Amino acid sequence: MPTTESSSLNPARVVADLKALRDLTGDEHGAQRVAFTATWKKAREFLRAKLAEVPGVAVKTDPAGNLWATLKGESPRELLIGGHFDSVPNGGWLDGCLNVLAGVEVLRRFAAQGTPPVTIRLVDWCDEEGARFGRSLFGSSAASGALVPDDVRDLTDRNGVKLIDAARECGIDLHRVLEAKHELANAAAYLELHIEQGPVLESLGVPMGAVLGTFGVERHQITFTGQAAHSGSTPMSHRRDALAGVSRLHQAIREIAVRHGGVCTVGKVTTEPGIVTAVVGQATMTLDQRHLDAAKLALMYRDAKLASERIALDEKIDVEWKTIWQIQPFPFHPTLIQFADEAIRDVCGTTHRLPSGPLHDAAEVCRTGVPTVMLFVQSLRGISHNKIEDTKEEHLLMSVRALDQLATRTADWIRTR
Amino acid sequence: MPTTESSSLNPARVVADLKALRDLTGDEHGAQRVAFTATWKKAREFLRAKLAEVPGVAVKTDPAGNLWATLKGESPRELLIGGHFDSVPNGGWLDGCLNVLAGVEVLRRFAAQGTPPVTIRLVDWCDEEGARFGRSLFGSSAASGALVPDDVRDLTDRNGVKLIDAARECGIDLHRVLEAKHELANAAAYLELHIEQGPVLESLGVPMGAVLGTFGVERHQITFTGQAAHSGSTPMSHRRDALAGVSRLHQAIREIAVRHGGVCTVGKVTTEPGIVTAVVGQATMTLDQRHLDAAKLALMYRDAKLASERIALDEKIDVEWKTIWQIQPFPFHPTLIQFADEAIRDVCGTTHRLPSGPLHDAAEVCRTGVPTVMLFVQSLRGISHNKIEDTKEEHLLMSVRALDQLATRTADWIRTR
Repeated sequence: MPTTESSSLNPARVVADLKALRDLTGDEHGAQRVAFTATWKKAREFLRAKLAEVPGVAVKTDPAGNLWATLKGESPRELLIGGHFDSVPNGGWLDGCLNVLAGVEVLRRFAAQGTPPVTIRLVDWCDEEGARFGRSLFGSSAASGALVPDDVRDLTDRNGVKLIDAARECGIDLHRVLEAKHELANAAAYLELHIEQGPVLESLGVPMGAVLGTFGVERHQITFTGQAAHSGSTPMSHRRDALAGVSRLHQAIREIAVRHGGVCTVGKVTTEPGIVTAVVGQATMTLDQRHLDAAKLALMYRDAKLASERIALDEKIDVEWKTIWQIQPFPFHPTLIQFADEAIRDVCGTTHRLPSGPLHDAAEVCRTGVPTVMLFVQSLRGISHNKIEDTKEEHLLMSVRALDQLATRTADWIRTR
Repeated sequence: MPTTESSSLNPARVVADLKALRDLTGDEHGAQRVAFTATWKKAREFLRAKLAEVPGVAVKTDPAGNLWATLKGESPRELLIGGHFDSVPNGGWLDGCLNVLAGVEVLRRFAAQGTPPVTIRLVDWCDEEGARFGRSLFGSSAASGALVPDDVRDLTDRNGVKLIDAARECGIDLHRVLEAKHELANAAAYLELHIEQGPVLESLGVPMGAVLGTFGVERHQITFTGQAAHSGSTPMSHRRDALAGVSRLHQAIREIAVRHGGVCTVGKVTTEPGIVTAVVGQATMTLDQRHLDAAKLALMYRDAKLASERIALDEKIDVEWKTIWQIQPFPFHPTLIQFADEAIRDVCGTTHRLPSGPLHDAAEVCRTGVPTVMLFVQSLRGISHNKIEDTKEEHLLMSVRALDQLATRTADWIRTR
């Protein structure tokens, strides 16, 4: 029997809170809640004020700057609901804060019904975006233990301010951030609602989807080196055209992505000398490959590498790979995915399962072994990190209801495990 | 019976003159004889001094700044030998000035033998390279009538100096440059020796080649517009990847070049937004197509255009073409090509026919209907416009002898026409 919606849940209040937050911390260019800035602090004051109105909820900040709101339950085992209040500069009005404010509403609903069966905790992760210092998932990776403080201490923003100093300004001692892991000691499940930030749900006409996990990523820079030569005096047969490496490999990685069911992207190409009258002597390309399955990701990487070497041999040019970044896939918990499907179907009448291309804090929690799942709600035109980021209001209301239902199911599951 | 080499010809003197010129007007970065500069003027003083030593030769400068050295013959019909003393910045020691100094040596040889059968004229064209103001073939296109003074008057160098003012500094009134056409009134043939600036002769092991003409050029910028999208959240099937236009068209133009026997080059590619995590929303590429046959050049252009449209349709992206520059091919004179072949075979034992990819002043003379041909001598590694530009000394000596033989044959031909 499907869990029925609690009568005290007020999804419209979440939309009103989102609009109030937008007015408070956005401008004509979009959201400006970049972590470790005054606007971000103002946003958190707004959050604290909302939480202060919820009876029985205790609020604290951990050593990594993550804000925790705890509603004690009959069991000390914890159901976590997460999100992030920080945004990119000129960001959208939903990315990250929908998760948090929907979580506040779920807390309200649990609180209104007395002591919940398990402890319910809302977490606002610190600096999910990494917009200022280039290190995303700061707070959640501190909690998971994946962050290496010495690797980030000297990251600087565009004004030359170091991360370690900006964090200290916000009361965070970089040497102690890994102590945030204690917050996960009693975690029994982690839920996160997020806008999709992609086109899949909209193209299918489905309001929401259950997320299968976050993609693993292989990110590389590939340089092909041939021989610059005059475009008029060099016959085709005499050329060692470095651009041929890029254009043929771009074609190849698209086939590789389709063959293995992942995504592969060439986002940037540069050409040297880069003039109209010269055959390209050196061409570089970025390659970003993502898959939910670690073995298939490894195959995609291997196939791309082999293709690049085959093309280089064929074109009489050289190829060199340089790793930019790698992360493993984090597949979510099968039971929680099933619960997410059921909650979505109850609320929306239909559901869909899809992987997450972007990373989320959920990946860091999943890394620690805590059963994790996410809900995606449609993004209009698939656009995010932009002031025109939007979701239909009816879908926002559905997403709050679905998160609430998923929380109820998951709390019941935790209690009976 | 092959024309035998005149006993008074001294090819080694040309090499010595080239080295003296290099010492006078080059530095550790290469040749610095940029037109309309002090170093160029110094180079021309060197040339005037060399010409002053040749008995019977009259020197003048025409309204376009071209320097003419005339040795009157029995007939007023003229055999022209051309070249250019100007260089690019940090240029090579042979490009342009080999032509002129070899021409001086041929003048010397004719002068030493008394009155030649036809009038022999050497021309040092003004600003062949266009290195300072971006308009190449300045003096020769003034003589051909192709130059439009109003189109170039406001061209500025990197210091903001206008072409019209730099020319005036050198005694050239831009409003009168087209009067240079009178210099071609009695021209019966035009010969030009040049380094190949390409890899063909070296790769064949042939010292010299007879040039069939200069390529026509179609030069365009092509912009593909798709939709920028997140590299993680956008499935392959949802993408409108602008880079696919570039990579597929680059592949296509290489096949088109081979099919029609021309050359096609993509020299520069740019990507927007150009970040590792985004599908390319807009990609631009340059396309440079060259062919000796106007009809085939038109086919290459048409095929590339059609291919771009087919690819755009297939990829659901848009394509837009913008013309950068166009010029027709200038096929050289068949009889003179045959004379060039014979002269080269006499001197080198073997010959080869090849088109010229780069443009030369010879194209402008050819445009006026004067029978024209060029001789190419091997460039080591095919490199030019660079201080490491070089040609084996034995080949330089051969090239002077071949030019001299070609001049003799051509003078005989002019006399008997």
